[in-house]
Amino acid sequence: MSHNTFGHLFRVTTWGESHGPAIGCVVDGCPPLVPLTEADLQPWLDRRKPGGSRFVTQRQESDTARILSGVFEDGNGPVTTGAPIAIQIENEDARSKDYGEIARAFRPGHADFTYQAKYGVRDHRGGGRSSARETAVRVAAGAVARKVLGEGVRIRAGVVQLGPHRIAPGAVDLDAVYDNALFAASAEVVPAWEDYLDGVRKAGSSIGAVVALEVTGVPAGWGAPVYGKLDADLAAALMSINAVKGVEIGAGFASAELSGEDNADQMRIGDDGLPVFLSNHAGGVLGGISTGQPLTARVAFKPTSSILTPRQTITRDGAETDLRTKGRHDPCVALRGVPVVEAMAACVLADAMLRHRAQVG
Amino acid sequence: MSHNTFGHLFRVTTWGESHGPAIGCVVDGCPPLVPLTEADLQPWLDRRKPGGSRFVTQRQESDTARILSGVFEDGNGPVTTGAPIAIQIENEDARSKDYGEIARAFRPGHADFTYQAKYGVRDHRGGGRSSARETAVRVAAGAVARKVLGEGVRIRAGVVQLGPHRIAPGAVDLDAVYDNALFAASAEVVPAWEDYLDGVRKAGSSIGAVVALEVTGVPAGWGAPVYGKLDADLAAALMSINAVKGVEIGAGFASAELSGEDNADQMRIGDDGLPVFLSNHAGGVLGGISTGQPLTARVAFKPTSSILTPRQTITRDGAETDLRTKGRHDPCVALRGVPVVEAMAACVLADAMLRHRAQVG
Amino acid sequence: MSHNTFGHLFRVTTWGESHGPAIGCVVDGCPPLVPLTEADLQPWLDRRKPGGSRFVTQRQESDTARILSGVFEDGNGPVTTGAPIAIQIENEDARSKDYGEIARAFRPGHADFTYQAKYGVRDHRGGGRSSARETAVRVAAGAVARKVLGEGVRIRAGVVQLGPHRIAPGAVDLDAVYDNALFAASAEVVPAWEDYLDGVRKAGSSIGAVVALEVTGVPAGWGAPVYGKLDADLAAALMSINAVKGVEIGAGFASAELSGEDNADQMRIGDDGLPVFLSNHAGGVLGGISTGQPLTARVAFKPTSSILTPRQTITRDGAETDLRTKGRHDPCVALRGVPVVEAMAACVLADAMLRHRAQVG
Amino acid sequence: MSHNTFGHLFRVTTWGESHGPAIGCVVDGCPPLVPLTEADLQPWLDRRKPGGSRFVTQRQESDTARILSGVFEDGNGPVTTGAPIAIQIENEDARSKDYGEIARAFRPGHADFTYQAKYGVRDHRGGGRSSARETAVRVAAGAVARKVLGEGVRIRAGVVQLGPHRIAPGAVDLDAVYDNALFAASAEVVPAWEDYLDGVRKAGSSIGAVVALEVTGVPAGWGAPVYGKLDADLAAALMSINAVKGVEIGAGFASAELSGEDNADQMRIGDDGLPVFLSNHAGGVLGGISTGQPLTARVAFKPTSSILTPRQTITRDGAETDLRTKGRHDPCVALRGVPVVEAMAACVLADAMLRHRAQVG
Repeated sequence: MSHNTFGHLFRVTTWGESHGPAIGCVVDGCPPLVPLTEADLQPWLDRRKPGGSRFVTQRQESDTARILSGVFEDGNGPVTTGAPIAIQIENEDARSKDYGEIARAFRPGHADFTYQAKYGVRDHRGGGRSSARETAVRVAAGAVARKVLGEGVRIRAGVVQLGPHRIAPGAVDLDAVYDNALFAASAEVVPAWEDYLDGVRKAGSSIGAVVALEVTGVPAGWGAPVYGKLDADLAAALMSINAVKGVEIGAGFASAELSGEDNADQMRIGDDGLPVFLSNHAGGVLGGISTGQPLTARVAFKPTSSILTPRQTITRDGAETDLRTKGRHDPCVALRGVPVVEAMAACVLADAMLRHRAQVG
Repeated sequence: MSHNTFGHLFRVTTWGESHGPAIGCVVDGCPPLVPLTEADLQPWLDRRKPGGSRFVTQRQESDTARILSGVFEDGNGPVTTGAPIAIQIENEDARSKDYGEIARAFRPGHADFTYQAKYGVRDHRGGGRSSARETAVRVAAGAVARKVLGEGVRIRAGVVQLGPHRIAPGAVDLDAVYDNALFAASAEVVPAWEDYLDGVRKAGSSIGAVVALEVTGVPAGWGAPVYGKLDADLAAALMSINAVKGVEIGAGFASAELSGEDNADQMRIGDDGLPVFLSNHAGGVLGGISTGQPLTARVAFKPTSSILTPRQTITRDGAETDLRTKGRHDPCVALRGVPVVEAMAACVLADAMLRHRAQVG
Repeated sequence: MSHNTFGHLFRVTTWGESHGPAIGCVVDGCPPLVPLTEADLQPWLDRRKPGGSRFVTQRQESDTARILSGVFEDGNGPVTTGAPIAIQIENEDARSKDYGEIARAFRPGHADFTYQAKYGVRDHRGGGRSSARETAVRVAAGAVARKVLGEGVRIRAGVVQLGPHRIAPGAVDLDAVYDNALFAASAEVVPAWEDYLDGVRKAGSSIGAVVALEVTGVPAGWGAPVYGKLDADLAAALMSINAVKGVEIGAGFASAELSGEDNADQMRIGDDGLPVFLSNHAGGVLGGISTGQPLTARVAFKPTSSILTPRQTITRDGAETDLRTKGRHDPCVALRGVPVVEAMAACVLADAMLRHRAQVG
Repeated sequence: MSHNTFGHLFRVTTWGESHGPAIGCVVDGCPPLVPLTEADLQPWLDRRKPGGSRFVTQRQESDTARILSGVFEDGNGPVTTGAPIAIQIENEDARSKDYGEIARAFRPGHADFTYQAKYGVRDHRGGGRSSARETAVRVAAGAVARKVLGEGVRIRAGVVQLGPHRIAPGAVDLDAVYDNALFAASAEVVPAWEDYLDGVRKAGSSIGAVVALEVTGVPAGWGAPVYGKLDADLAAALMSINAVKGVEIGAGFASAELSGEDNADQMRIGDDGLPVFLSNHAGGVLGGISTGQPLTARVAFKPTSSILTPRQTITRDGAETDLRTKGRHDPCVALRGVPVVEAMAACVLADAMLRHRAQVG
């Protein structure tokens, strides 16, 4: 990861601002002969796209992805050619006038201040480059990564904690996530969570959340020691998502309270003669290399910074002021973060697969 | 980060196994004319070196670092020349016979299994490349990074939770850390923690812990958007340390329960005309770029996998067995992880400083 | 350089095929506050664009570059923001039907065969990714690089040899290059060269050429030892241009015949107290680092592979056949390669400038 | 390539100065289970080592390479483990007193001036980092690369031009190279060349040369389009060798005079049903991807800058002076450059092999 490029061999470069003409990415290093059309991207984009419920921003974007290169139809349907795949999404509903005030003042808790401090200039319209809008193209890239990984690798995420409300570990059901507007990993919590989030929304406030990730089908051996660790790559990828403040793998922070006996995932030989682990505190990674067990992680999202409640801040010119952010915002950015978490995991794993194949064959 | 190299401009490549003749690193991209001698490295290495108390491994290593290149004495004391700095530490007390059993069987919770699964071969002696011994050279590289950063950037870490025992946030004192054998961020907890860890040690067990990190003196503007985020780089660097299972920045997982109003670090203009933040939930990073506030993070370490209590496992040949790990081990790897956390933060920041200078001047 | 990305800090990623909907690039790592509009790109693109004379392909492309991100107007004209700059050029005159035959057979001397051998699929339309059309976006990126370098760095190239016809070293005039349709570095040779190239063109043949490059205004100190050498980066950048088969720096291959005395560029102190070199066999680079003298290089281009004269080849299915390439081609690809050579030099130097600033400040 | 690291997947980082305690490299990304001992390195190092004849520097170095990591003996002889391989060579015969004068004055044609200009400090002893001594570890790394490539890939180089004396293309015999002290690619020229080079040496002068490279056994498909071109990587690798001023692939600069008909390497189907090329002007690379034909290149070396004949130069303090370089130098650096050219080709190809395997499998 550096600049606006992610990955070593499966590489994604993203570009675009919230209120510019378009956003996009270039997916480079994709193996050839992978069947790929725009229809492979759209379902994932639809999951993340705004305007779908009262719990997400009311900005109306179709998020229609267009593939401009790297795919060729040669008799058996469109396939990747090994050349870079450029993907582009038009910005259709940018209302920059909503943001006049944040041109002058910095939203507390937002990147407005740091972009200005670093670059001496910032595209304030809708947050410019720092907007969560950028994550749409990550989802598109993730859809390509899923095709590279194949159907054996199953990547699912969902909200397991909304503010103070948690789903008990035993009740987490990642198959329920896309059946409710809250991306909640349990159908049962939805009514209560909807009431809760309605309250947050109507109060002009916002709230944080925790997203759980689980990937099955990763064979033992992906990743590498020291600075090529699969969990380090995953941590960086997830921490790079807007509003993420924490990442844990497997037992995570809870492992600080575990004894060596309890933490050790004991091993047996299964009926098929293959290694079986009796638990998964490791979250599927030991020494930076996948164990063959499900890869599990949890990601903490902070609450949206753009809120209607006035907050103390300063202006670009160094004056003190109060700011309440109008415009259209998500009361909980973590919700639409769910498909982004999945997409980043897909990109990390596609990259790890290619790197493993390179070294070990 | 990839392979065994860390960093983009300030780059550290490490090599060496626990029981090989030596371990070492190459620090490349260091600015010239930085005063540097072996005496600048040793104090930091001494903090991490084994054998210092009954709470760490009894392996006896002087961890004497030798600089083999990249430094030149030209009349005003030795300075860096801009050429790569090779640093080497001999392995003095490797007792490979202690490890005969783990040549055959995989320690549950350890990288033994995954290295074998990936590479089809592993240097089992003392854990080989996966041993925490590798972190000694990270500490040496971190010492170089500190010299590059200068004294204005102050990097401190300490244990704030040992198993179930926590230091209250208000009681954390990072200046106390190197005055006690537990690297505890509070002098007061030491007696009780020593009793507790003695019990763990005598039981042939081990325990996890949480290390807090705080860096002051980082100016606003370091880091970059999207895939160059300072917190993403820090997360990867910290997650790459042996036994780390979780990383959080600022309020971290607690931010999932915060409202937008509470999370927003409000801003005022200080007496000196500069921006002042009224809180630091962000942990000193917004949008991936430093705010000028202290950089704060917390790191979860799992317990040592090498324990005396027998655990169920399998052998390299696919047979079931029980394994108790003899040899000399840390009952809590997090303790000696404290200087490693500091070193990785130093390397991340030196790299961020150079990258910022490149783009913005 | 790797995949489709060039540069370490000033990074250019290109995408697109000859007959796809568009081609484009993402310029990442550009410093902020550099004034930039589409009007800064177009003059350089106009120099390379096809259809301008009978000596270049008759494909009609306006090569209008559109900037989609990374530039913001904030009161003092559009400037770069430090965010990635996406540039896009529509393909307007793609006639894929001209290429039916090369879908089946490989043009000898062309990448048709190797793309198919590597990927098992190729976008044959107009050469797909291997077409010189890709170089248009390199020229756009080079225009951004020129803005980063500023007007003190002057980059000029021109044809100094067309087939067997050479311009004597003393007669090379790089200011004449864009005043003639042959990009010749001398006005005097133009009539004779036009006659010669008309003959080549009418014979359905093609011819190679040599392009000279000269850059003035590069200060001493850019580049770095061993694997960061300025001349090594330049060699890779120039060799990456379609049809290039040789690169030499300064005296180049002629230096094989020089004695140490003749090759050594002796030094004196100039009237301004600064170092002066009495010659420039080094071509402005010693030990991989710029000397402050003009950077000089020469680049050999092979003749266009797409010719009307039938050549023996094989088909995708392994049958022998003869192929004459219809379609619209440059009789000498080196001509329009001149602005590409300049652009690549600009990108190498912008990258070197930022890398130098990072390490040395 | 950047800093002191070469390669993307098969990565070599070198360190060390001419008169420091040692030089070394870290070879990272090597596949596991490759049989490797120090005895695999030494024969290649012996070819490059100094002191072997009157035509090379009289410095006496055994160039004994020691492997410090990354190799493990597990019952079937030592094999690579996938971990980084640290290789180290002691400097045994460094006589820094020979170089007192070049501490103050810059050798014309040498990197003395540019290192000082860039870094404000330089290790002048024996040329420090800019010394050709650094290439010893490249040869060691190249030996590892050869093991990765296997015996099917045969890499040979030799001197084909010494000053004004050329070996006719038809007379080039790369099997003769290591049977004569001049690394000449023809036994016949040796007596005359020895006389010639004796004259150069006795005159206190030096001379340039051209080295030819040929690699057989590379399958079609290695390399990649645009910025991953095999020939661009090779050009960078060869240009990064000390004293190299030019690189050409296949017909190289001669292709500037070729017509499209003559340059096109026509194709037929061989008796085995596989593609056959009727010529190899391409030098085994089309569109940046290997064709399956021999990879051919030529490399121009300038004469040694360190000569006994006095030359005009300036001192570090800005005074004019004359300098004659005492000490022990090669009258023609290209000779010992031959194994270095081979080594760099081996590293480029090992890297290309792994990258190809990653993307295409």
